[in-house]
Amino acid sequence: LTVSAVEARALSEAVLSGLGATPDGARAQTGLLVEADLRGRPSHGLQRLPVLAQRIEKGLIDPAAQPQLEWRSPAFAAVDANDGFGVVAVQASIGALAERIRETGVGVAAIRQASHIGMLAPHLEQICADGLIGIMLTTSEALVHPAGGRDALVGTNPIGIGIPADPGPFILDMSTAAISAGEIIAHANRGDELPPGRAVDSSGAPTTDPEAALEGAISPFGGAKGYGLGLGFELLVAVLTSTALGRDVLGTLDVEHPSTKGDLLLMIDPATLGLPAPERYLADYLEELRCAATAPGVQSVLVPGDRMRFERERRLVAGIEYPPELWRQLLDLRGAVRA
Amino acid sequence: LTVSAVEARALSEAVLSGLGATPDGARAQTGLLVEADLRGRPSHGLQRLPVLAQRIEKGLIDPAAQPQLEWRSPAFAAVDANDGFGVVAVQASIGALAERIRETGVGVAAIRQASHIGMLAPHLEQICADGLIGIMLTTSEALVHPAGGRDALVGTNPIGIGIPADPGPFILDMSTAAISAGEIIAHANRGDELPPGRAVDSSGAPTTDPEAALEGAISPFGGAKGYGLGLGFELLVAVLTSTALGRDVLGTLDVEHPSTKGDLLLMIDPATLGLPAPERYLADYLEELRCAATAPGVQSVLVPGDRMRFERERRLVAGIEYPPELWRQLLDLRGAVRA
Repeated sequence: LTVSAVEARALSEAVLSGLGATPDGARAQTGLLVEADLRGRPSHGLQRLPVLAQRIEKGLIDPAAQPQLEWRSPAFAAVDANDGFGVVAVQASIGALAERIRETGVGVAAIRQASHIGMLAPHLEQICADGLIGIMLTTSEALVHPAGGRDALVGTNPIGIGIPADPGPFILDMSTAAISAGEIIAHANRGDELPPGRAVDSSGAPTTDPEAALEGAISPFGGAKGYGLGLGFELLVAVLTSTALGRDVLGTLDVEHPSTKGDLLLMIDPATLGLPAPERYLADYLEELRCAATAPGVQSVLVPGDRMRFERERRLVAGIEYPPELWRQLLDLRGAVRA
Repeated sequence: LTVSAVEARALSEAVLSGLGATPDGARAQTGLLVEADLRGRPSHGLQRLPVLAQRIEKGLIDPAAQPQLEWRSPAFAAVDANDGFGVVAVQASIGALAERIRETGVGVAAIRQASHIGMLAPHLEQICADGLIGIMLTTSEALVHPAGGRDALVGTNPIGIGIPADPGPFILDMSTAAISAGEIIAHANRGDELPPGRAVDSSGAPTTDPEAALEGAISPFGGAKGYGLGLGFELLVAVLTSTALGRDVLGTLDVEHPSTKGDLLLMIDPATLGLPAPERYLADYLEELRCAATAPGVQSVLVPGDRMRFERERRLVAGIEYPPELWRQLLDLRGAVRA
């Protein structure tokens, strides 16, 4: 089923408004979900709306909550999202830091008690549009086993890096897991084998069987290095936001637990620091990469952010493809909320 | 040949003092090299001394230079190392930031014109010993191909993360390359195959032949994700330190070019920010990881930093094993410097 971004937004806003979100909150949360679908990351798209709606109905998300920001030092803000939308807390943090770093050059916001902050890329693109650099870390449910381990004890802990560049910003938005839970389920539904190195079975042995992987755990990307990195991010976020660790991180995938994860945002203002504009400074090198000789069978070398931008432009014209069952579920949800 | 750390330090300090280093400079540079050997990372140990010595003799390193630190904002210092020892610039930066972040909570030092800053772990352990958190990024010669690419265009760009913890700090110190150039050479010398996924040949095709890899390029660790991460670090460091990118990064492995790479240090003071001490906050979780069920054939799950600490303690007692040719070369170097 192909739907325009405009239709997708209208449906989501209707659901969220019906559940008590403010117009701004409904628009911000909707925008983030649809932006993920536009970029080809459905795991962070409208597919999340039913869980969001249930969490609101159960009082686990307060759709009208406003975040509270407390400056713990000139360059560090502790943000309590008050169980509101993650996107609203992130937007408030970006705004406050953008102003503050004109003076301090560097600033950090440490967010707690927020719902899922969604795909990192749209936040980072917004930061880069103002000529600023952004780095984001966020913890998530423990789905990943430690290197050499058997059980899921570490989050999929994504990192986002955004740096202004031409023709569009450098945007890295990646989890530290070798594969997402959603992709394993998709492989299981199709009866396909997983690529090697993505998961272990319940004994901790590597497996390419998606059913066995669902009983086991996801592997960190890149082996012991990816484990070290994902764990480092988990510790940093937890310490700086005073939020949970490991299996105590809950509340983005389920409809039972308050959100116990944390989100970290670091922003830097190159202009305040007297540095050259990144767009110009990086232009030649990024061009060299995009024109680089390719490995056999590869069409071109990409810079992170390139493909996402292309996918978005394409879907803005051609529309977003939703599974018919998902769209029906969303229409039902709108009906239920109105009733 | 087994040598005590005391002997190793004495030899290195004699060489560096003979070449005009200040006593403090010789001690700092020596300390860092021997600390790498103690931790089982010989690629960053005394093996580097002959290149350092040649760079000093050619005037590419000024062994008596003092770094200049300029605060570009309350939380950001631009550090010009004046072609001096990287370790001296890092030490000065750590000292300045440790003081500053008692007020700002967060601070960044962006270092340029420094010689190789060595293994990141010892710097991070020092930061953690004061209850502070440290993150380091540094660029390096382009030895890594972009994902889908053929030629080496990206540095091995390591990341270091240090967080205070018990019984010792969490210390991640890893490059974003799948293998080091030194390890490929070691495989070639032994006639061993490389593990898969570590390198490509000159056509860009994956290879396990170390000779073919030396004609080709090292792969990023973890495929496209590791490429994105290493590239992100390269762009961040270059922009914030106003240093070179890609193949223009020179001066740590060669004896011909001035140092054009950059080094980035971020430090955070949890106490200033009113946060709980990381040691206590992380204790239960790190214990859970260390006691976690293991995969078949694995003895125990490790936390980054654990093995390094163990290796160091062992070699402090048992001594450091050096290849006899290297030790002879170092003795010759001391003789030449004295003459």
